[in-house]
Amino acid sequence: MIIVMQLHATDEQVASVVEHIRASGLQEHVSRGSELVIIGAIGDENKLDVGRFEILPGVERVSRVTKQYKIVSRDSHPAGSVVKVRGIGIGGPQIQVIAGPCSVETQEQMDIAADAVAAAGCRLMRGGAFKPRTSPYAFQGLGVTGLEYFQAAARRHKLPIVTELMDIRMLDTFMEYDVDVIQIGARNMQNFDLLKEVGRVNKPVILKRGLSGTISEWLMAAEYIAAGGNHNIIFCERGIRTFETAYRNVLDVTAIPVLKRETHLPVIVDPSHAGGKAWMVPALAQAAIAAGADGLLVEMHPNPCDAWCDADQALSPEELKKLMGTLGAIATAIGRSI
Amino acid sequence: MIIVMQLHATDEQVASVVEHIRASGLQEHVSRGSELVIIGAIGDENKLDVGRFEILPGVERVSRVTKQYKIVSRDSHPAGSVVKVRGIGIGGPQIQVIAGPCSVETQEQMDIAADAVAAAGCRLMRGGAFKPRTSPYAFQGLGVTGLEYFQAAARRHKLPIVTELMDIRMLDTFMEYDVDVIQIGARNMQNFDLLKEVGRVNKPVILKRGLSGTISEWLMAAEYIAAGGNHNIIFCERGIRTFETAYRNVLDVTAIPVLKRETHLPVIVDPSHAGGKAWMVPALAQAAIAAGADGLLVEMHPNPCDAWCDADQALSPEELKKLMGTLGAIATAIGRSI
Amino acid sequence: MIIVMQLHATDEQVASVVEHIRASGLQEHVSRGSELVIIGAIGDENKLDVGRFEILPGVERVSRVTKQYKIVSRDSHPAGSVVKVRGIGIGGPQIQVIAGPCSVETQEQMDIAADAVAAAGCRLMRGGAFKPRTSPYAFQGLGVTGLEYFQAAARRHKLPIVTELMDIRMLDTFMEYDVDVIQIGARNMQNFDLLKEVGRVNKPVILKRGLSGTISEWLMAAEYIAAGGNHNIIFCERGIRTFETAYRNVLDVTAIPVLKRETHLPVIVDPSHAGGKAWMVPALAQAAIAAGADGLLVEMHPNPCDAWCDADQALSPEELKKLMGTLGAIATAIGRSI
Amino acid sequence: MIIVMQLHATDEQVASVVEHIRASGLQEHVSRGSELVIIGAIGDENKLDVGRFEILPGVERVSRVTKQYKIVSRDSHPAGSVVKVRGIGIGGPQIQVIAGPCSVETQEQMDIAADAVAAAGCRLMRGGAFKPRTSPYAFQGLGVTGLEYFQAAARRHKLPIVTELMDIRMLDTFMEYDVDVIQIGARNMQNFDLLKEVGRVNKPVILKRGLSGTISEWLMAAEYIAAGGNHNIIFCERGIRTFETAYRNVLDVTAIPVLKRETHLPVIVDPSHAGGKAWMVPALAQAAIAAGADGLLVEMHPNPCDAWCDADQALSPEELKKLMGTLGAIATAIGRSI
Repeated sequence: MIIVMQLHATDEQVASVVEHIRASGLQEHVSRGSELVIIGAIGDENKLDVGRFEILPGVERVSRVTKQYKIVSRDSHPAGSVVKVRGIGIGGPQIQVIAGPCSVETQEQMDIAADAVAAAGCRLMRGGAFKPRTSPYAFQGLGVTGLEYFQAAARRHKLPIVTELMDIRMLDTFMEYDVDVIQIGARNMQNFDLLKEVGRVNKPVILKRGLSGTISEWLMAAEYIAAGGNHNIIFCERGIRTFETAYRNVLDVTAIPVLKRETHLPVIVDPSHAGGKAWMVPALAQAAIAAGADGLLVEMHPNPCDAWCDADQALSPEELKKLMGTLGAIATAIGRSI
Repeated sequence: MIIVMQLHATDEQVASVVEHIRASGLQEHVSRGSELVIIGAIGDENKLDVGRFEILPGVERVSRVTKQYKIVSRDSHPAGSVVKVRGIGIGGPQIQVIAGPCSVETQEQMDIAADAVAAAGCRLMRGGAFKPRTSPYAFQGLGVTGLEYFQAAARRHKLPIVTELMDIRMLDTFMEYDVDVIQIGARNMQNFDLLKEVGRVNKPVILKRGLSGTISEWLMAAEYIAAGGNHNIIFCERGIRTFETAYRNVLDVTAIPVLKRETHLPVIVDPSHAGGKAWMVPALAQAAIAAGADGLLVEMHPNPCDAWCDADQALSPEELKKLMGTLGAIATAIGRSI
Repeated sequence: MIIVMQLHATDEQVASVVEHIRASGLQEHVSRGSELVIIGAIGDENKLDVGRFEILPGVERVSRVTKQYKIVSRDSHPAGSVVKVRGIGIGGPQIQVIAGPCSVETQEQMDIAADAVAAAGCRLMRGGAFKPRTSPYAFQGLGVTGLEYFQAAARRHKLPIVTELMDIRMLDTFMEYDVDVIQIGARNMQNFDLLKEVGRVNKPVILKRGLSGTISEWLMAAEYIAAGGNHNIIFCERGIRTFETAYRNVLDVTAIPVLKRETHLPVIVDPSHAGGKAWMVPALAQAAIAAGADGLLVEMHPNPCDAWCDADQALSPEELKKLMGTLGAIATAIGRSI
Repeated sequence: MIIVMQLHATDEQVASVVEHIRASGLQEHVSRGSELVIIGAIGDENKLDVGRFEILPGVERVSRVTKQYKIVSRDSHPAGSVVKVRGIGIGGPQIQVIAGPCSVETQEQMDIAADAVAAAGCRLMRGGAFKPRTSPYAFQGLGVTGLEYFQAAARRHKLPIVTELMDIRMLDTFMEYDVDVIQIGARNMQNFDLLKEVGRVNKPVILKRGLSGTISEWLMAAEYIAAGGNHNIIFCERGIRTFETAYRNVLDVTAIPVLKRETHLPVIVDPSHAGGKAWMVPALAQAAIAAGADGLLVEMHPNPCDAWCDADQALSPEELKKLMGTLGAIATAIGRSI
């Protein structure tokens, strides 16, 4: 921790800060310049509370120097981690595109969707049975019936399934229906009790970034899961909220190289929710792969015009197939495969 | 719903939009200008999905005209609502300042805090037993023991208590310990399952605005609670996330007059979390009352330097008392009381 | 400057940083902890470039400790400054409300406006002759003719005039027409050549905050003016750009106490541009004064419905008069006058 | 223009809106639903002022339907435009990477830089002679001497030069020194007088996006230039300001496909200023090209450690050369060349 004293701070004020540092079991290093006194607190910073130093008389500002995330930090595991889902690796040289509809609607819709996902060359499938909707009057998902349709459709192609968990009380049901990857949605990135619970199960978790989640908060949200024992975490960038109103969110591609440097865990991107329009998806998907993402989460619907939600952002099966071709060429250009 | 067609949209494209409107049981009004065709869909807009129109060929953009919140809308209840907490009205001419520590620490701390809250002239008390913390390694609150300390301290002064609920599974415990007002924190503004549950109980709810929650999303989050039957909802502005890094959040005072116009429910402000520093609290609290807020949620600790969390943002008992005096004068200036 | 080394930084890397510090004529203080090495560079920090240290091998991050603004800093002038405009003080105990129309339209409109400004008890008048408009096809202001109308109207009431300068080449004209206060608009907060020029003249300057200007950038923009010799600078908060779309900008009241602490110069607020709607202005104006602002810049039009620009945000003469009454009561409540 | 009336608006209020529409020479279309009345104003919308309708009694909200930019709109020129700079096309199938140092420092530095730019296969060169700096005490550029060094270095390789114009009064000097492409910086995106002036000369202009410039404002800023007669405009995305503090700006790749749809003009990206760190540049540059950008503006310095400004964001000559190889492969993958 570094404490910068105010201009003209007195010797007593400096002494008081030093006393507080020692009382916490750390050591101080005092640097006196012509204008400013800077005090470093050396030792286990987790024993210190920034706020308690900031209110000491004469203190200008206080900043931490060590990271508050440990298990998910690349420092703890310099080589990258590959999360395995029924034998399929996420985070390795092969890029994984997880495709499927926004919401599970009918068995037939899911069967056709699963065929299209497999035909396009994707190895995992997505679909929502429980839907977080801004309005209480919007379609909230089929629930458990949706899980049934989804599993029935996906198993015909041996596609592992990815679906969102919103309510802690449904976790047992997810285990029972053998959901392969649990998705935590953007609005739940800091639903700490939910994070703790998925930290106790042995299933890979996709952790979406909150609408205005900082990189640091996101890493700490993952640390909540990891601290429970579950290290199979996949970060998913899905666009952030900004001042721009011409599109729903701003896909933050810079997060990709930054996360890859900060954490050993895989990073994927959801270009569908980021832009909010199907016609933007190819450009955003291509950008994500070119920037180093380990995979994508893409919405595809057998017949977008009839989708029960987010109709305007789903690709058609043909569009998905075409996109997979372009992504393959880009993957090759940067030394990866798809 | 209003559908603006693209420049040069064909008659067939217009006809197709009209057909979709009729198929949904609504009526169309087509306005043909020299350059543009605009189509209005008249009837129950909730039957229409914006996305499904946006992907029709020739459509430029689609916008809703009716509000998606009904029960919380001022249209449904033109006079303002007063939420009663054990006889104390929130939303009436009298302004309510809810004060207390960030977190419950010990019985002694809570006893002194309750004395100070009452002595300052406040009529309700706040305190956290379950704490949402960004880091999994930070103090997470005393839990149920904290509720016990809190009630014991507050009852000596007959102060109704306000505390945060994070986990659905704790709701029964909150009812058992007779928590007077349930607070939903900023990070849970769109935890829809939690909102639905507090919609089923008969307790006033303080709904904090999400870190980047829009006015519209916030109103719809309240509608989730109201739709369950619980209409005793109090909005709490607590600062929003912006580009500015000189302070933690930006207190959005504009939200006060805007919410008072959009909803009949009371609006309070948390100046402590907004600014993040105790020295900013008086200015922000004064601004909130002057802008028309119905109350405040203020952090006060018997001894801020020793607080277990957010030490730098708590007022001392003396500072709270002094602030109450200034707020009283401002309340009088705008025709209210405290 | 504080340099935090990476975990596992080598002794050679530390030595290289130290060497760079010494080469710049400063002294180093090296703090070695169990995990981290932190290096302080003590001396005149302005000799150092953060970027050149950030790219040295083994460096994790670098931060400045001294402020980059000197003349405008409160450190240089602990008592507050009062800017005088023809004998009227801005920044003293008396609050100044500067009112008038968005744009100068006709001599008659300005005459009626000046009468209303004086009748409401305001002591300065605002009005735009050169207008920054987002669209090149919108009304751009009357130009020099506008200055003539404005001065003719204001002089009858001895009201000093405030008007915006957009183009460096018009500065001589402003001096010739004896504009009393030069306003630099939000879009020009970092138009550095314009700032340098107004730094060379002997006229008070109102410096509006940029749409997404940070407190720190704003202070440095003022320092550009001050460095030229003109210390008569007034900061004007006018709302910042955020994700919220329910209103034009978010009035940042927190900026008021923060600026008053950082600088000795006066701080005023423009509630009209902040909210963008006349009905929001009273609440925002009241909040600004209650939070400690030294004055306001308010739009008032003799007949808002006929205004040539921003018709929806101007108060009528009656509304202004009523607002002045409420503001007077709030000023009294916080120990000031109006 | 579409006017949505308030719930319970009276017939008189509707009639008054209609009257205002007719008075402006347009035609009204009134759509009466069970709950709402919506009025369309058909005709030349530029004759109408949104604000004047918003304050009419009974009006809920008003929105424009036509775009306020004409010349730069793709509607006016459905095929894309190629801007030619001494025979080199920007906006065609060939991607252009414009590289060079942040600021011109010495003749030797520029000579080495020009050699490296040409050796890497780039066809245009960038360099700053006039620098916009946040602090008045930072290096402000070499000025005219910088232009001389720059031209002397670039001419040896026949590289057209790109450099920033900040001050209107320097435009003649830019013409005299035969600057090939005039760059308008982010802080001047809405310096309308500067835009008007560069609209009058016959030189290509790179218009950078403002720190928080919306797509719509950016298009209208370009329209200011185009309205003066200069249609050789190149948009340059350089990252936007958001809540994230882990990197300087957020590169908005979504702006690329959206601009390509809205305007016929070329779109390039500056990955150096977006991320702010050299190690982020390859990922961001790759993302930009994969998303469809027509070119890049990249900082390269012969010896980044010695750069006079932005040392931490410049690529070395070797890094630039390597990046060009990867970009070439990505260009091929999406059917373009470099």
